[in-house]
Amino acid sequence: MPRTSEPGRSVSSRLLDVLFAFEPGRSEMSLSDLVRSTGMPFATVRRYALELTEAGALKRDAQGIFTVGLKLWRLGTLAPFTEPLRSQAQPFMEDLYTALRQHVQLAVLEGDEAVVIERLSAPSALGLVSQVGGRLPLHCSAVGKILLSHAPAEVVDSILDRGLRAYTPQTITDPARLRAELARCRSTGTAAVRAELSEGAHSYAARILNTEGRVVAALSVVVRAGSVKEHAILPAVVTSGLSISRLLGWQPTVRVRTD
Amino acid sequence: MPRTSEPGRSVSSRLLDVLFAFEPGRSEMSLSDLVRSTGMPFATVRRYALELTEAGALKRDAQGIFTVGLKLWRLGTLAPFTEPLRSQAQPFMEDLYTALRQHVQLAVLEGDEAVVIERLSAPSALGLVSQVGGRLPLHCSAVGKILLSHAPAEVVDSILDRGLRAYTPQTITDPARLRAELARCRSTGTAAVRAELSEGAHSYAARILNTEGRVVAALSVVVRAGSVKEHAILPAVVTSGLSISRLLGWQPTVRVRTD
Repeated sequence: MPRTSEPGRSVSSRLLDVLFAFEPGRSEMSLSDLVRSTGMPFATVRRYALELTEAGALKRDAQGIFTVGLKLWRLGTLAPFTEPLRSQAQPFMEDLYTALRQHVQLAVLEGDEAVVIERLSAPSALGLVSQVGGRLPLHCSAVGKILLSHAPAEVVDSILDRGLRAYTPQTITDPARLRAELARCRSTGTAAVRAELSEGAHSYAARILNTEGRVVAALSVVVRAGSVKEHAILPAVVTSGLSISRLLGWQPTVRVRTD
Repeated sequence: MPRTSEPGRSVSSRLLDVLFAFEPGRSEMSLSDLVRSTGMPFATVRRYALELTEAGALKRDAQGIFTVGLKLWRLGTLAPFTEPLRSQAQPFMEDLYTALRQHVQLAVLEGDEAVVIERLSAPSALGLVSQVGGRLPLHCSAVGKILLSHAPAEVVDSILDRGLRAYTPQTITDPARLRAELARCRSTGTAAVRAELSEGAHSYAARILNTEGRVVAALSVVVRAGSVKEHAILPAVVTSGLSISRLLGWQPTVRVRTD
């Protein structure tokens, strides 16, 4: 989002605006692109971009195009619930992938969206919109339903207050129907999405619990609509979700917490 | 590395010092930890840490412990030669993993080290020091030898000038021997490391080329020393490396460039 340069804003916040101007689809930017995207003066943007480059947060090529630096990528790998969770989940995701040969996704809650932190796909599997680092809506993706159904009431209220966007004719847009669906997800620990996010794709998700019984992530398998039956997928997803949960310290005697 | 607070240094560079104070093994820090690690005054560190938290670059928990934020992780996924390369390489890495059931690693050159950008491991496979985002020395890891052997002469000179650290008795520490080894890696496009980085681990790597014939990454398989023969591993690694290279636009008619 372009922002106008407010004179009162601190150096730090303007520097970070330049940094966070990089987004999926806008990962390579010239100084002019950065000016357009931040709404700040050229000289300011140039100074910050060069300082960020010197620190290794950005990288500048011979043509003057800036990209996110590998050093920043390394820093990002330190975020909790990303690399450590990925590393622990990965062997189980691989087993799930080996068993089913379908897309396997791992996602966590960030604000009012689900963020895909790991994905395994066969070259031949269904073309999938999501990518690692990509975001999915909470009300109509299987991982989103899992995360939303275990989120605090305020998160659910804010999602409903903003209105439920219809991605397809199958998307649940009625608040009462979504609340009932979330109650079902909460009680079963699983979620199913049938062409609610994109026509032609079904997905099935299970929750991942930590040692305290909190849902820290959701695991899903995405298949071409009509290609595989739910009962052929869901037990495997649930099993993998429980295996990863056990690795995180969860025990069947631990009560699942939704507060 | 702790740095003293120089009065002349800009706000931006001090803000970035706070950000880059987070490192593997130091991914959770209190304000006091940040003060110790940056050498800056408490009030300054506190202000920057809170500004970084407000922007989503850091996250602060109820106990006042800071971690890298998920938003920064997402930003990092935009770095070239990380997520796009990972996504393209992943299916082939999975096939390699399925065929061999051994650690599979993908690494790129950053400065004078190799950075692991993807890794697949079996729960039962050899305990491996490297992790995603982790770094490996260029002179005694298989991915490192591949990357170093195709790097500009200045990089090789600077590695040799600094001296070759002996990680094990098998590490090549003689410059002339390493140069001969690198020439071999360059001509074959493969590298082997036998207990040169850690006792008990062998690794075998192949190069990944882009459309211009430049080596953009290295792919390796790591096995327990003596458990699997080189000739049972290397052809599969080379084949996967070539498949990934073709996906990146490389053709067998393209000359491999090492300049």
